Amino acid sequence: MPDTVTAFPTDHVAPAEVFAVPDPLAPALVPDTRRTPAEEARTLVAGTTVATLSTLSDDGHPWGSLVQYGLLDDGSPVLCVSTLAEHGRNLVRDQRASLVIGEADPVGDVLDSGRVTLAGVMRAPEGEELEAAKAAQLAANPTSGLYGGFGDFTYWVLAVDRVRWVGGYGRMDSCSAADYAAAEADPVAPHAAYAVRHLNEDHADALLLYAQKLAGFTDATEAACRRADRHGLDLWVTTPRGKGPARVGFPEPITAPDGLRAATVALVKMARGV
Amino acid sequence: MPDTVTAFPTDHVAPAEVFAVPDPLAPALVPDTRRTPAEEARTLVAGTTVATLSTLSDDGHPWGSLVQYGLLDDGSPVLCVSTLAEHGRNLVRDQRASLVIGEADPVGDVLDSGRVTLAGVMRAPEGEELEAAKAAQLAANPTSGLYGGFGDFTYWVLAVDRVRWVGGYGRMDSCSAADYAAAEADPVAPHAAYAVRHLNEDHADALLLYAQKLAGFTDATEAACRRADRHGLDLWVTTPRGKGPARVGFPEPITAPDGLRAATVALVKMARGV
Repeated sequence: MPDTVTAFPTDHVAPAEVFAVPDPLAPALVPDTRRTPAEEARTLVAGTTVATLSTLSDDGHPWGSLVQYGLLDDGSPVLCVSTLAEHGRNLVRDQRASLVIGEADPVGDVLDSGRVTLAGVMRAPEGEELEAAKAAQLAANPTSGLYGGFGDFTYWVLAVDRVRWVGGYGRMDSCSAADYAAAEADPVAPHAAYAVRHLNEDHADALLLYAQKLAGFTDATEAACRRADRHGLDLWVTTPRGKGPARVGFPEPITAPDGLRAATVALVKMARGV
Repeated sequence: MPDTVTAFPTDHVAPAEVFAVPDPLAPALVPDTRRTPAEEARTLVAGTTVATLSTLSDDGHPWGSLVQYGLLDDGSPVLCVSTLAEHGRNLVRDQRASLVIGEADPVGDVLDSGRVTLAGVMRAPEGEELEAAKAAQLAANPTSGLYGGFGDFTYWVLAVDRVRWVGGYGRMDSCSAADYAAAEADPVAPHAAYAVRHLNEDHADALLLYAQKLAGFTDATEAACRRADRHGLDLWVTTPRGKGPARVGFPEPITAPDGLRAATVALVKMARGV
């Protein structure tokens, strides 16, 4: 165990060839637009109601526990916890906390799935904010309508001041609390898992066309879809030069929850016209 | 927000009738055996490889993050984390940590599902323990065979000193670190979800017989199975006096992973003979 903390490395301490992936051979014909870290965070937070809360025990030890959260309009999480539970007593003593929220249904290697840490200080809401907090909890968990009224339960709102998003291997970033509060959850997220499965099962030809004609991987022999979002598709391409990621952005971000189908069909037309 | 921390309540501050459930009308004919909190904890920990880690940031703020863990024989969790990540830097500075591990596939209200918090201090294993830690991580995540060798990654073993199990509403307890280390994971746990579904879908008559003849709810009109374990079944019974939980223990704990079928069939014979 290191005795003293000096400088930490700023990149993986590993041979560069471990991370080598093929570059595109031609310029991409579609924009390389992606969700911002703030949009990634808001999308994850909107996708479930279950989080792990980190608080401080009376001896200063970090203490994790499962909680269910609701959301205020600005993405501030709302908890309703009992002082019969250690996390509830911890918050009364010390309001510093963080929440980890992961993908609702991760598939494959969980370290390659999305999660976000929201850190900040809890406050006990009052007046209108308390009413909004109760409504947010009720939407997340109808049972809170019962236990939320018990005298041992307290409503808390997390005033988020740090946001750290991890999307998977090599995909991670932070954003400001203001950007988080202002960002919108991706409206297509609830339909993305189905779209990815459908594209891979029934439209491998379209995916290969995207890679070859739109993403610049002219020598691609195979392409699978790994993720879909309002801004485009993440592909995983096979070429004679190796395998690696490719991005196919949509010309315009999708605004309708059911817009992925039309957007991917439009890409096929564009690719056939090249 | 309370300004000072005085005494916390020791029970829910709510009208007693909220928690009223019917009592059995006759003595139960089967033992009320259950998994110990240590067995509950070891069962949960054996059921997945994904946890949320709580550590301390450089300003003392509690910081949560997603990790994948392996297990040493005594149930000590093994992590392999990079100092490129905040949790990796936190652990080099301060080895106090906790892990929250939940049910692999919770169904229904997540607050009524199982989870455990393991708290303690991390140590960097050396020699034989380091080799065991690497093997444990590899079993949990084959990719660790690659990144585990990078210079920015450190293996850590959590020396567990606090164990807090929550099984759902009203089901929770703590156990000692020694009891946790000595306990065995329930061998039937991987088959329990299927067994519960099968009993509810195809054997409602048997469940009602258990409730009426074995659990003492002679006036039960309906019974559903909520959980199955090596020691018995948790039922939810409907009576003219209200609804509530009932326990039907097996005469002997099951030792074989596929033993639930034989044990539940034996209970039917016993109930018919009453």
